[in-house]
Amino acid sequence: MGCDFIARATPGVQGLQPYVPGKPAQELERELGLTDIIKLASNENPLGPSPVALAAAQQALAELHLYPDASGYRLKQALQQHYGLSPDCITLGNGSNDVLELIARAFLRPGDEVVYSQYAFLVYPIITQASSATAVVTEARDWGHDLDAMLAAVTERTRLVFIANPNNPTGTWLSRAQLCAFMDALPVSVVLVLDEAYTEYSEDPDFPDGLELLARYPNLVVTRTFSKAWGLAGLRVGFAAANREITDLLNRVRQPFNVSGPALAAAEAVLQDRAYLARTLETNRAGMRQLIDGLKRLGLAVIPSAGNFVCVGLGRPAGPVYQQLLERGVIVRPVANYQMPDHLRISIGLLAQNLRCLQVLEEVLSA
Amino acid sequence: MGCDFIARATPGVQGLQPYVPGKPAQELERELGLTDIIKLASNENPLGPSPVALAAAQQALAELHLYPDASGYRLKQALQQHYGLSPDCITLGNGSNDVLELIARAFLRPGDEVVYSQYAFLVYPIITQASSATAVVTEARDWGHDLDAMLAAVTERTRLVFIANPNNPTGTWLSRAQLCAFMDALPVSVVLVLDEAYTEYSEDPDFPDGLELLARYPNLVVTRTFSKAWGLAGLRVGFAAANREITDLLNRVRQPFNVSGPALAAAEAVLQDRAYLARTLETNRAGMRQLIDGLKRLGLAVIPSAGNFVCVGLGRPAGPVYQQLLERGVIVRPVANYQMPDHLRISIGLLAQNLRCLQVLEEVLSA
Repeated sequence: MGCDFIARATPGVQGLQPYVPGKPAQELERELGLTDIIKLASNENPLGPSPVALAAAQQALAELHLYPDASGYRLKQALQQHYGLSPDCITLGNGSNDVLELIARAFLRPGDEVVYSQYAFLVYPIITQASSATAVVTEARDWGHDLDAMLAAVTERTRLVFIANPNNPTGTWLSRAQLCAFMDALPVSVVLVLDEAYTEYSEDPDFPDGLELLARYPNLVVTRTFSKAWGLAGLRVGFAAANREITDLLNRVRQPFNVSGPALAAAEAVLQDRAYLARTLETNRAGMRQLIDGLKRLGLAVIPSAGNFVCVGLGRPAGPVYQQLLERGVIVRPVANYQMPDHLRISIGLLAQNLRCLQVLEEVLSA
Repeated sequence: MGCDFIARATPGVQGLQPYVPGKPAQELERELGLTDIIKLASNENPLGPSPVALAAAQQALAELHLYPDASGYRLKQALQQHYGLSPDCITLGNGSNDVLELIARAFLRPGDEVVYSQYAFLVYPIITQASSATAVVTEARDWGHDLDAMLAAVTERTRLVFIANPNNPTGTWLSRAQLCAFMDALPVSVVLVLDEAYTEYSEDPDFPDGLELLARYPNLVVTRTFSKAWGLAGLRVGFAAANREITDLLNRVRQPFNVSGPALAAAEAVLQDRAYLARTLETNRAGMRQLIDGLKRLGLAVIPSAGNFVCVGLGRPAGPVYQQLLERGVIVRPVANYQMPDHLRISIGLLAQNLRCLQVLEEVLSA
């Protein structure tokens, strides 16, 4: 065509592999002609939408021809009420993926270093690479973060450290004491991005609340999402909380209308729906027990998880098992692209979904 | 706080001024306690939502707890049917702002040059600056693009050229012959981003269709939005069309779930709503005539426009006039940040809205 456009791209983008999402049920229907499909692949809320959020989104649709409020005034007020966050410490995003990307774009120049762990969420390598920055990946310890190794990896070139707590896809987590010891030792010029997408699910009393740590650590950015416990994955809304200076930087690179009108309205509303959150956590608790018991009964090694999913080692290549589950209408998540070729990540669903997943898995494994 | 985080940001972001959107009616209500407000500030569709799009979005809300289809399969099928575009030549965006940004992020390294015109859409300088690239701004000719000057500004360092047709905020446009002559002379290694956000409104028979030019120019990227004539500004959806190689690059930097479920569904549906598009164009035609006549009667200079707005010169500073219009419940758009301190941009509304805008403007100007 007269020009090699790939060669004209930035060095980072030339080497970039895009994120591979969980297979949508619709796609599997198209491909295999199946109908009775369960998807336990994307850590979605199995309860369906909060009725309160749904009503708010429906109402917001009446103005779908108008630009959303670029400042997110009402949602920020609700976040202030719910979490005690000042609106000028909040950056709204099109899901937390968006705010993670804003952080990278605000801080990363070509050649800067970013520290994260083996088995970390794939969005961190992607946004690091897209910025032509250099990833410094530390080895995991028991599938989780080795904080000593991460600290040792910090150099004068380090701009960002990414930690997900709990971690996706492994489900591992750090205690408040571990996290604070890490922050105390981290140079203040290095920003820690603490990704708390799954924080609502944790039941450990020593589990830290990143938002409470903001006052203590100026170099902390906490990211949250409405896609998991709040059940709004389809609307795309999340936020970052940080000091005013960092928040100012993130809002400079934020697209003014990055969050849609229905998403703003639904997020504002769902924060009031305590019953939905309570049912969500109860469903997760029961499903977690059921899945862990069932997987252990199959003789499989489950990594302890503080999220709404479990990562299970099959002791053999997981790819063929994933495929056979697909053919039986059960979508789970392969994690070979996380260097975990023998594991599958299974989202915690409703009891009947978990049961069917366990039954089909047993069938496939014993075949 | 122990660290100057602004100094830690990228050079581009350190100098970045965020986009200032049109004032939301809600905000004016809060500030001035007004209720009967009309907003002709953001080039929104004054008809309200397409009923077909609204129904599709409502239906999609049933799955608001599920991630949207990251591939946008169904919307791409609909775009193929409507525009004859192959799905692998389409990049979906969270509004066309999003795809404009993807283009910048795919191609711009610090120090690369970007050519655009005086009075160009403010998103071009913002995304150029955010990439720490260098803007080369050519002088306008009759408020529009001086294509000779733009060609002369292209150097070996030029990666991108941005042209909006019609241009926002001035409304000026280029003919097919002008655009093709420019493309014929542009080096194939330089990508022309042709922003066609307002293309549906043009009535000039010589107005070019960028999508038809894609086969002829491999270095052409056309961006389109559903926010204007299609009336979906609140849902955030747009797309870029380009050759497969460039499309591959844009999809590498695209966030996988950048377009929400309701936005995908509504955009797919609205393409079928021919009646809505026809009413939109008829409303715009009548309103354009009414506004131009009225403004001329007030002795004001209107820049000829092919969009759903007009840019009017007041012959005096527009800031105070804008303020007095606000106090009377009429929101229009000041364009001082476009170096046009004596102009206002007025979106074309319903006949009654246009009439009230003209009446209030007359009142303010004669006071």
